[in-house]
Amino acid sequence: MSRYQDGYQLAGSRLSAHADVPKAVYHAYGYVKKAVAVVNGRDGRLPGWMAQLIERVADEVIAGQLDENFPLYVWQTGSGTQSNMNVNEVISNRAIQLAGGQLGSKTPVHPNDHVNMGQSSNDTFPTAMHIAAVQAVHARLLPSVQALQQAIQAKARQWRDIVKIGRTHLEDAVPLTVGQEWSGYAHQLTQAMDRITASAEGLYELAAGGTAVGTGLNAPAGFGEAIAVEIADLTGQPFRTAANKFAAQGGLDAMVGASAGLRALAVPLMKIANDIRWLASGPRCGIGELILPANEPGSSIMPGKDFDRIVDPAVMTGLRQHSDAESVPHQSST
Amino acid sequence: MSRYQDGYQLAGSRLSAHADVPKAVYHAYGYVKKAVAVVNGRDGRLPGWMAQLIERVADEVIAGQLDENFPLYVWQTGSGTQSNMNVNEVISNRAIQLAGGQLGSKTPVHPNDHVNMGQSSNDTFPTAMHIAAVQAVHARLLPSVQALQQAIQAKARQWRDIVKIGRTHLEDAVPLTVGQEWSGYAHQLTQAMDRITASAEGLYELAAGGTAVGTGLNAPAGFGEAIAVEIADLTGQPFRTAANKFAAQGGLDAMVGASAGLRALAVPLMKIANDIRWLASGPRCGIGELILPANEPGSSIMPGKDFDRIVDPAVMTGLRQHSDAESVPHQSST
Amino acid sequence: MSRYQDGYQLAGSRLSAHADVPKAVYHAYGYVKKAVAVVNGRDGRLPGWMAQLIERVADEVIAGQLDENFPLYVWQTGSGTQSNMNVNEVISNRAIQLAGGQLGSKTPVHPNDHVNMGQSSNDTFPTAMHIAAVQAVHARLLPSVQALQQAIQAKARQWRDIVKIGRTHLEDAVPLTVGQEWSGYAHQLTQAMDRITASAEGLYELAAGGTAVGTGLNAPAGFGEAIAVEIADLTGQPFRTAANKFAAQGGLDAMVGASAGLRALAVPLMKIANDIRWLASGPRCGIGELILPANEPGSSIMPGKDFDRIVDPAVMTGLRQHSDAESVPHQSST
Amino acid sequence: MSRYQDGYQLAGSRLSAHADVPKAVYHAYGYVKKAVAVVNGRDGRLPGWMAQLIERVADEVIAGQLDENFPLYVWQTGSGTQSNMNVNEVISNRAIQLAGGQLGSKTPVHPNDHVNMGQSSNDTFPTAMHIAAVQAVHARLLPSVQALQQAIQAKARQWRDIVKIGRTHLEDAVPLTVGQEWSGYAHQLTQAMDRITASAEGLYELAAGGTAVGTGLNAPAGFGEAIAVEIADLTGQPFRTAANKFAAQGGLDAMVGASAGLRALAVPLMKIANDIRWLASGPRCGIGELILPANEPGSSIMPGKDFDRIVDPAVMTGLRQHSDAESVPHQSST
Repeated sequence: MSRYQDGYQLAGSRLSAHADVPKAVYHAYGYVKKAVAVVNGRDGRLPGWMAQLIERVADEVIAGQLDENFPLYVWQTGSGTQSNMNVNEVISNRAIQLAGGQLGSKTPVHPNDHVNMGQSSNDTFPTAMHIAAVQAVHARLLPSVQALQQAIQAKARQWRDIVKIGRTHLEDAVPLTVGQEWSGYAHQLTQAMDRITASAEGLYELAAGGTAVGTGLNAPAGFGEAIAVEIADLTGQPFRTAANKFAAQGGLDAMVGASAGLRALAVPLMKIANDIRWLASGPRCGIGELILPANEPGSSIMPGKDFDRIVDPAVMTGLRQHSDAESVPHQSST
Repeated sequence: MSRYQDGYQLAGSRLSAHADVPKAVYHAYGYVKKAVAVVNGRDGRLPGWMAQLIERVADEVIAGQLDENFPLYVWQTGSGTQSNMNVNEVISNRAIQLAGGQLGSKTPVHPNDHVNMGQSSNDTFPTAMHIAAVQAVHARLLPSVQALQQAIQAKARQWRDIVKIGRTHLEDAVPLTVGQEWSGYAHQLTQAMDRITASAEGLYELAAGGTAVGTGLNAPAGFGEAIAVEIADLTGQPFRTAANKFAAQGGLDAMVGASAGLRALAVPLMKIANDIRWLASGPRCGIGELILPANEPGSSIMPGKDFDRIVDPAVMTGLRQHSDAESVPHQSST
Repeated sequence: MSRYQDGYQLAGSRLSAHADVPKAVYHAYGYVKKAVAVVNGRDGRLPGWMAQLIERVADEVIAGQLDENFPLYVWQTGSGTQSNMNVNEVISNRAIQLAGGQLGSKTPVHPNDHVNMGQSSNDTFPTAMHIAAVQAVHARLLPSVQALQQAIQAKARQWRDIVKIGRTHLEDAVPLTVGQEWSGYAHQLTQAMDRITASAEGLYELAAGGTAVGTGLNAPAGFGEAIAVEIADLTGQPFRTAANKFAAQGGLDAMVGASAGLRALAVPLMKIANDIRWLASGPRCGIGELILPANEPGSSIMPGKDFDRIVDPAVMTGLRQHSDAESVPHQSST
Repeated sequence: MSRYQDGYQLAGSRLSAHADVPKAVYHAYGYVKKAVAVVNGRDGRLPGWMAQLIERVADEVIAGQLDENFPLYVWQTGSGTQSNMNVNEVISNRAIQLAGGQLGSKTPVHPNDHVNMGQSSNDTFPTAMHIAAVQAVHARLLPSVQALQQAIQAKARQWRDIVKIGRTHLEDAVPLTVGQEWSGYAHQLTQAMDRITASAEGLYELAAGGTAVGTGLNAPAGFGEAIAVEIADLTGQPFRTAANKFAAQGGLDAMVGASAGLRALAVPLMKIANDIRWLASGPRCGIGELILPANEPGSSIMPGKDFDRIVDPAVMTGLRQHSDAESVPHQSST
């Protein structure tokens, strides 16, 4: 439903499986297009039937029903223009289809004049990224951390009275209980959740309404405010319009901030995983304080040996997050 | 053809599209299993018909015909045991199928006793990684850089006599020719190719033969040497057995070295891309020394504006490579 | 005044000028030792005259008067034990000197029994680091950023009506005013100050009272609370005792958080500096929108050329901060 | 002996002890100035007595006798112009002093016309950096690694027959000898030395002769070649003139390459240090395979506890090197 369907792609990137724009960004773009259609319809800039048609298609985008029409890689111009145009074209064509028109005719719903009305890639792409990131943080990440924190907290209570040696520099030091040790892990995760939440705060500010370079050229007065109110209503998250659109579009500081929140989680997770893999080392020639569930069959040379397949990957993903955390700030410094 | 087919997976990783083990690692594993079958058959540890059957299936693995049987994520134990066992099981079952046996019966070709004979994940996984990396560097990366270097060299010749201002700290300095400037870019790429080649040198050393921890336990004398000769013969690359298996299996230093070669390319590529995007800035209010081909339609607000969709992504992939280059050495330090 | 004076050092580190423990950490340690002496004196664990003597010497440490007695490098055991013992010995000896005793006699003020009473390196060193970091952030960093923000804000007002071209992907886009552009810079800095403040919040939690491994072994009840109250009083900053000492001593998460705040500043600073050096490029063959003050003499080959010596270093320090920001989280993950 | 003496400095940098240009860069600059004076004297562009006078003073620079005259921070313009001018002025004034003239008169030896003859910061600063780096690598780093490698190799021989458990994923696996394990460490260091040497190869190419932007403007024919021959002769290292001066001055690729060599060492060093600190954990509740020499007094709470002050710092410096390795490539990408 878009010329991007035809493989409009950076050839070299085909080699990499990493490069797709996450579908969640497109689902978030659906909220943007819907909110703008609501505002444009309410203000009479779009006829009511057309606004409703765009909203209906935007709901399909949000629900992931049009995912296969969004094939692009992340390696686009810095503005994400290709993704915005891809969304405009898909919504236009799907609306035309629903209206019984001819695909590609841009009639009666034009991708630029109607779907993209009052917008630019420069303000809508960061808006969509913020929405996608807020949802990933609040709907997926924080509940997972919460569940892990509670599981660890339960262990801390269960093991409250089991005394063990405390160590500093890996040398035997003085006693503590296993429950005390695990209460520390639980508390680190609690603090990480606080840091994630605080770090993601800047994502609630939306660039929509700034259009090309932040001046709001071609957009009516109060447009950004109205769109933000609508998006907040649709998503149930406290989005608001950015106080200064030049800052919101000139940098990615809110994304850098949110990335720091992820690292605030990766650091204690990796510390806990490192502790566990050492405390579970052995069984006979290691520290052997913990026995991990064997969830992996043994090796052929050492058939009695069991593998745990959680802790090693936890350390690896921690290292991966460290390097991802590196990329984001540089992207915003250039 | 393997229990891993059934979704034997780390649940959390399903969220990430990044996480698949590259198929090229499995194709490389095909070379390992074939080479070992050749050696075991020749030495009489496997009956001739079985060695040939394993070799035949290994050829299917190498050719990518069994790719769909390798569904694993990279988040495994640090040894890659799951991938090795996946390969063993798939080859076993496919051989059984070809022999008219019953899938899963482990008869007549047993995944551990026959396909994995004299091997461990600990020596075969780094061996497969080295093969895959050598092929990626020599068959894919270097020819691409060579083509780019030649294109830039041709421009350097074409623009040999066009005089332009030279700049230092972005300030006007003294004249040079565009051809001189581009000869510098070409030379940077030539040097980068030399650095990639030199940095990848360590990948030719193979751990195979070291088995579980580098001692070669359960492997016959000369096993590592024979396997390396066979792999060199199959791939046409000068692989050799690692001089010290404890070093080869205890660290990932050769991979760290190869990663440095990629960065030696990323740095000048990013510098050249940054130069070009600034020299092409404008057209009227920028430096405007270069006019890039317009390969992207203009924006709806600024219809006269054309986009180039090569240079921005080049800078982004450079930044991505910087952060990838970060991950590899940490993985090997722990 | 300490055996550390005698060159008790890691020989290899002499080569590096980077390696000294910042004196500010020792000044902060002075607050710790003073606060503990106050609490121990008040509770009768130290005789009044001795508590007062330690407090007096601690004031000298705080004021930097004993700086030359703290020669250690940062490359110590992970706990900072050497620095704590260095402080204990210096305070002991200086108190002995003031009391007319014999240096090194440990009488009447013993470094361990009296100066270090109820403490461990494991709780006091992170406490001192938090104090030093809070003071660096609030007394030095934030006022500097504030001054820069105000200078930029003044320019934004001054240049409110000067129209210029806006650019996206370095291509000419639509107009805005210079004042609008600079209002964006000012807003980025305002947000950076908010992020620094929020990120440094965790530094107010102090480990003191946890002693060796967080259990508070050898410390009286309420010791950590009392020390934190005292430190808050002495410094005028809202320090409080850490809610969970196992978390506070088992990780460096609060320092990782604070480090993220520094990066939240480095990113917009580097973006602004990069913008300025490009907008000031030329004067004749560049963009030339800005003319920077010439604060550096011209080159000998190009005598008419003036240098600005602020912007290049700003970009370099930004890159340096990026890499520093890398080190801190890894230190806490291991 | 230079106006830079008067505190011509970036005020903000005073806060940081890290920021001095290493004196070794100035010593290397002495070689540059001496070599150029030799060439200019031989070719008759400088009178013989003046060339000899500059050479004599350059020898003082090389020997570190004028170090206190080089007070600058690294935060200069990207070209290092301030450092070059500092060197020119110091050599000029010291030559004037030796000739009985008046300091600051620029007579009879002028800093620009004579000391800097045929040069620019743009070609001499990278030349000096290459000389300093080559000397640091070959005279200091490689001998230290060699000594460590030999010490570990000796242990490998000494412990050849002591059997221990081998571990994979920290789990007990199959036996090997301690000597085998340490032979792996020794081999990793041998390979690291090879990688350092290969990575530093690009440093032998010198930019001198390219002057302002690589064209050699104002420099006589064959100037770069002659200077490189002279520097090779003075230092005993195989320096040669860079094949393409535009590449040599437009990027820092050779420095990035050399930095990768340092990381190739940091990675196995950190792995070895991590292994040792775990193998030495205990003494009673850890792995306790190794007993490290106690070179640090015990803690006051745990008086029987001894500290090793080598291994923790080794891990820390490894992490520091990881982050330094991050900074260099970014500096060259911009």
